[in-house]
Amino acid sequence: MAAVDPAGGNVVSRSDAESDVAAVPEAMGRERPVVTGVRPSVDGGRYPAKASVGEPVVVTADIFSDGHDELACVLFFRPGDEERWTSTPMAALGNDVWGAQFEVDRLGQHHFLIRAAVDPFATWRRDLCARAEAGQALDVELLVGAAMVAEAAARAKGPDAETLQARADGLRVAAAEACAGDPGRGLELAASPELTAAMERWPNLCTSVSSPVYSVVADPRRARFSAWYEMFPRSASPDPSRPGTLADVEARLPYVAGLGFDTLYLPPIHPIGTTNRKGRDGSSVCEAGDPGSPWAIGSAAGGHMAIHPDLGSFDDFDRLVRTAGEMGIDVALDLAFNCSPDHPWVVEHPEWFRHLPDGTIRYAENPPKRYEDVFPLDFSTTHWRSLWASLRDVVLFWIGHGVRVFRVDNPHTKPLRFWEWLIPSVKAEHPDVCFLSEAFTRPRVMEHLAKVGFTQSYTYFTWRNEKWELESYLRELVDTGVADYFRPNFWPNTPDILHETLQRGGRGVFVARLVLAATLSSSFGIYGPAFELTERVPRFEGSEEYLHSEKYEVRHWDLDRPGTLAPVLSAVNAARHAHPSLQQNRTLRFHHVEHDRLIAYSKTAPGDVIVVVASLDATQRHEGMLHLDLDQLGVDPERPYELHDLLDGARYRWRGGSNFVALDPERPAHLFHLMAPGV
Amino acid sequence: MAAVDPAGGNVVSRSDAESDVAAVPEAMGRERPVVTGVRPSVDGGRYPAKASVGEPVVVTADIFSDGHDELACVLFFRPGDEERWTSTPMAALGNDVWGAQFEVDRLGQHHFLIRAAVDPFATWRRDLCARAEAGQALDVELLVGAAMVAEAAARAKGPDAETLQARADGLRVAAAEACAGDPGRGLELAASPELTAAMERWPNLCTSVSSPVYSVVADPRRARFSAWYEMFPRSASPDPSRPGTLADVEARLPYVAGLGFDTLYLPPIHPIGTTNRKGRDGSSVCEAGDPGSPWAIGSAAGGHMAIHPDLGSFDDFDRLVRTAGEMGIDVALDLAFNCSPDHPWVVEHPEWFRHLPDGTIRYAENPPKRYEDVFPLDFSTTHWRSLWASLRDVVLFWIGHGVRVFRVDNPHTKPLRFWEWLIPSVKAEHPDVCFLSEAFTRPRVMEHLAKVGFTQSYTYFTWRNEKWELESYLRELVDTGVADYFRPNFWPNTPDILHETLQRGGRGVFVARLVLAATLSSSFGIYGPAFELTERVPRFEGSEEYLHSEKYEVRHWDLDRPGTLAPVLSAVNAARHAHPSLQQNRTLRFHHVEHDRLIAYSKTAPGDVIVVVASLDATQRHEGMLHLDLDQLGVDPERPYELHDLLDGARYRWRGGSNFVALDPERPAHLFHLMAPGV
Repeated sequence: MAAVDPAGGNVVSRSDAESDVAAVPEAMGRERPVVTGVRPSVDGGRYPAKASVGEPVVVTADIFSDGHDELACVLFFRPGDEERWTSTPMAALGNDVWGAQFEVDRLGQHHFLIRAAVDPFATWRRDLCARAEAGQALDVELLVGAAMVAEAAARAKGPDAETLQARADGLRVAAAEACAGDPGRGLELAASPELTAAMERWPNLCTSVSSPVYSVVADPRRARFSAWYEMFPRSASPDPSRPGTLADVEARLPYVAGLGFDTLYLPPIHPIGTTNRKGRDGSSVCEAGDPGSPWAIGSAAGGHMAIHPDLGSFDDFDRLVRTAGEMGIDVALDLAFNCSPDHPWVVEHPEWFRHLPDGTIRYAENPPKRYEDVFPLDFSTTHWRSLWASLRDVVLFWIGHGVRVFRVDNPHTKPLRFWEWLIPSVKAEHPDVCFLSEAFTRPRVMEHLAKVGFTQSYTYFTWRNEKWELESYLRELVDTGVADYFRPNFWPNTPDILHETLQRGGRGVFVARLVLAATLSSSFGIYGPAFELTERVPRFEGSEEYLHSEKYEVRHWDLDRPGTLAPVLSAVNAARHAHPSLQQNRTLRFHHVEHDRLIAYSKTAPGDVIVVVASLDATQRHEGMLHLDLDQLGVDPERPYELHDLLDGARYRWRGGSNFVALDPERPAHLFHLMAPGV
Repeated sequence: MAAVDPAGGNVVSRSDAESDVAAVPEAMGRERPVVTGVRPSVDGGRYPAKASVGEPVVVTADIFSDGHDELACVLFFRPGDEERWTSTPMAALGNDVWGAQFEVDRLGQHHFLIRAAVDPFATWRRDLCARAEAGQALDVELLVGAAMVAEAAARAKGPDAETLQARADGLRVAAAEACAGDPGRGLELAASPELTAAMERWPNLCTSVSSPVYSVVADPRRARFSAWYEMFPRSASPDPSRPGTLADVEARLPYVAGLGFDTLYLPPIHPIGTTNRKGRDGSSVCEAGDPGSPWAIGSAAGGHMAIHPDLGSFDDFDRLVRTAGEMGIDVALDLAFNCSPDHPWVVEHPEWFRHLPDGTIRYAENPPKRYEDVFPLDFSTTHWRSLWASLRDVVLFWIGHGVRVFRVDNPHTKPLRFWEWLIPSVKAEHPDVCFLSEAFTRPRVMEHLAKVGFTQSYTYFTWRNEKWELESYLRELVDTGVADYFRPNFWPNTPDILHETLQRGGRGVFVARLVLAATLSSSFGIYGPAFELTERVPRFEGSEEYLHSEKYEVRHWDLDRPGTLAPVLSAVNAARHAHPSLQQNRTLRFHHVEHDRLIAYSKTAPGDVIVVVASLDATQRHEGMLHLDLDQLGVDPERPYELHDLLDGARYRWRGGSNFVALDPERPAHLFHLMAPGV
């Protein structure tokens, strides 16, 4: 063990500072309640929590005081660009949890805080009733109340001052009547809603305490509710004799819109390097005509602010974005912050790369693995400021071309502090921009990227296939503080991940995984057309890579192939759009099914109940008893209710929570809209 | 909704402040790791966590960085009264959790912080091995290492500077050899422990980040490990014709010591008021000779700094404390901060009480219930400073008479801010003093009292009798952040609580509840001699009050009554003293028993394994298969191990985790010392 001084400064303990009672501030001596456990919050307020426009921010906190007095808790909130706070009373939800909510009607930062105070008037009123019920004398108590109301009258301004003084006088008269045996008028006065309202307008705040100010960032609705479709532009050609272009992507838009997607994500569209270019299936041998990986960005034709000449022009791109926008589709670009050896920056900014003693630049590697077609940017350069600024310029450049959504490639290989600066600094000017974190790494790192600003995050969904895995993972995402800042985006496949369940399963498995992704999470995505055409051959047994991966070659897809899942995708997305339950995750609840291979859950919104039952092994038939928690769903167990399957239109009439379900490869999931009296 | 301004000040958002990259501090641009989730900590460091002298403080944190680089994490710590920090390296425990520990060798505050940095040298060494195994060329990599070592040489002082320069030269030579085909010397140099140690002494800290400084308060060992015996002095007389005295309590000490207790807690020993004195069984009618409740403190004979004349003198008290101390027993007093109507303060300090409009003082009540023999202190008085100071004087007065342990009556009815000031201010001068919180109220309030300083806390144990109740409650106390500040003290009975299970159960139930209390929690207590004499008649059916409660009358106890649990108490306390496993709660783990009425758990310490199996219904026989998690206990499943029952001396020889257990009213619990090869 070594002795050093890492911090230097002196630490003053609380007790040292306050041993002398004269040193305790007056406010602290009077203060009574405690406000703690405030949510939504991230690391005690260190980072803003996430909200979305049109969605209420549900604020809760543990609030309590000594003794048995009633509390008055108030939520204050305001948009970041306004000075005035608005307030709303909080309600006791049980076990010292208090809650209230506010709507955010505009993008950007909003602030809130909680003020709690002991409420002597409410306490007095409550106790007066208890005394009256027990037949105790009330005269003195009515005088106590009169004094309290007179004090409020002295605090009050405007008409309340007179009203309160009159009520105080009335309580004094009522005390005399109570002394004479008739407490009726006193009780009536105490119960008056007008008096209560006036007292609440002029509270005695000498015991009050306020929480710190917490922040939420309000993103567009699409941050919370989105359906992503990923496709390679160069494979979008309807003509197998030539690669696709941005114009082909534009022609594909009606198809994508017809499937119900709102975000069209394109892998990098920039020029691709030729030095050490990877061949088909990632081979280190590149043959003539191999197009290279779109993630090896940069050639003589330009870098991150250029478009691959084979794909088209900026005019083509701008038209694609515009046409997509008219169909309600955002075009999402890939931010892959690394360079091919041919990227212009390699010459223009050698200080952004790591040079080896032999004069070469270090290529990307995870020893002993080597990625010779990519030079990573060296974020440890002393020239980090110019690097950061240029990377932001890339983002702003594409924002200038109408892009509002970015999928960020491997953000966990760039410093966390960089994102903590970049994202808020972009959103300060463009609060509608969304960033999806493509970090498939350890949980704490994925969480931290979301804390520092990523709007949505890829998840482990792809590898969660067992019931216990899905249930425990979803509880972690939905029922813990993680939900305050981490918005999951569920993908059954990506160009990098063809999971074994899809490789081994048939059409039914694809449908089940789609239904799970699209209903467990309010944001989901697929890599198409590989998904809807149920492409499922791996590069080799045990690999999660696709054979003939589009990452390294141009593919041509027959969208009309029989068995395409296009109709299922349309049905699932239509259900998501029609049902507010599916546009959020907060209300997700699992229900018990007596079978390990069947999973059941519900999502609810006011007037809307969705129940999903899905097979976790759609290669064969499984059946079992489903036990819906009807109480949770607000369904009367004594009366029949209807379930309408939004996938195939079938209707079922059930009564009570326990019912038989059976799923098979032909029908691997139910996506039920539950209709019951009163729901 | 009303618009008001609760806070006034402006909130500067992070993004506003940092949009300009030039405004980002250099240190922030270079910083790589993140340190978060530091434990032990309370509300993010707002309050100190708890430690005890001689027990290691186990520090953990989530620490991670971008990318795949190795990290170097160091724990720094120091006692509050020293300037110099000591350091120890932290180890990666998996899933980005890092841990290290430090011992506290003195009472009072200690501080710690964590520093994390990317470790380029360790990363280089790891990658070098991977490259070597893959047969890649190492020459350039050895030059990279040489440059790193040369940089460290430039930072180093003393002999390390020369050593490191020599190693850098050596690596350069080795690079040339590697180029010529022999990487042997380079690999050998890289693996040298001396080089690693020297590099660790002179780290490159340009990427480093330090956590905030956290505090722990080190209490005496007894704060963590204690056995309390509560008794009423006035019932301590061996002569049924007269009430007991402090001298009788002194004479009872060998009995208490023989049972193995280390803390003797006496209900208030002060003069008792006569005005509105309660009669037997809490009756509002007091008859001649009724002694009143010890909690109705104060009469003409004095208040909180006086001794009831019937109990004896200060000399008697001082002798009692001294004799107890010689036997290793702390005398614990009751701090009941309220007054009888006859308390001297009522006249001397009318400003500390709440006066009603009719001129009377408000007595204690919970409407419509009334406690006319007690005047609560009015903490909302504007004279709170003199009240707080006087109450601290009471504590200091008894500390002056040798008292080091206080049981605090109903702390949740006094302001939380008062305790937050009182306890640290007393402990600043007297860090060995312990306060036990007698707050039987809602969970958040009980937790907060512990946060603001209470050393130990009463719990819900008395009302947790089912297996799921006990398991979930213990997990909450032991496996969550609550363990950082809340030290449970388990009581099977108190003068206020005779639980239904004891009322309905026989001797076996008493034994089982005793074993549970004394082994689930490292601190426990009983109210005796009612407990060991299995007193169990309630005041009426459905009441938790004792009939003929000592709170209102003098009792005489026949300690030699047949069937006394004294031998069991001695055995349980002897086991607690002999086995370090039972002196902490951190290692508590539950094991599966195939029976709802049987519970099993273990506690471990280095070289010590305790396994408890207890009946939760000791009114009849229950049997089932016990499945010990031998892996958890470090026991070889292939070899036999021995269990020695510390309650009755029986020995069992088991092999494998699954064994049959049977408990009945005669033997309602096993308290096993497990002995196995290698444990």
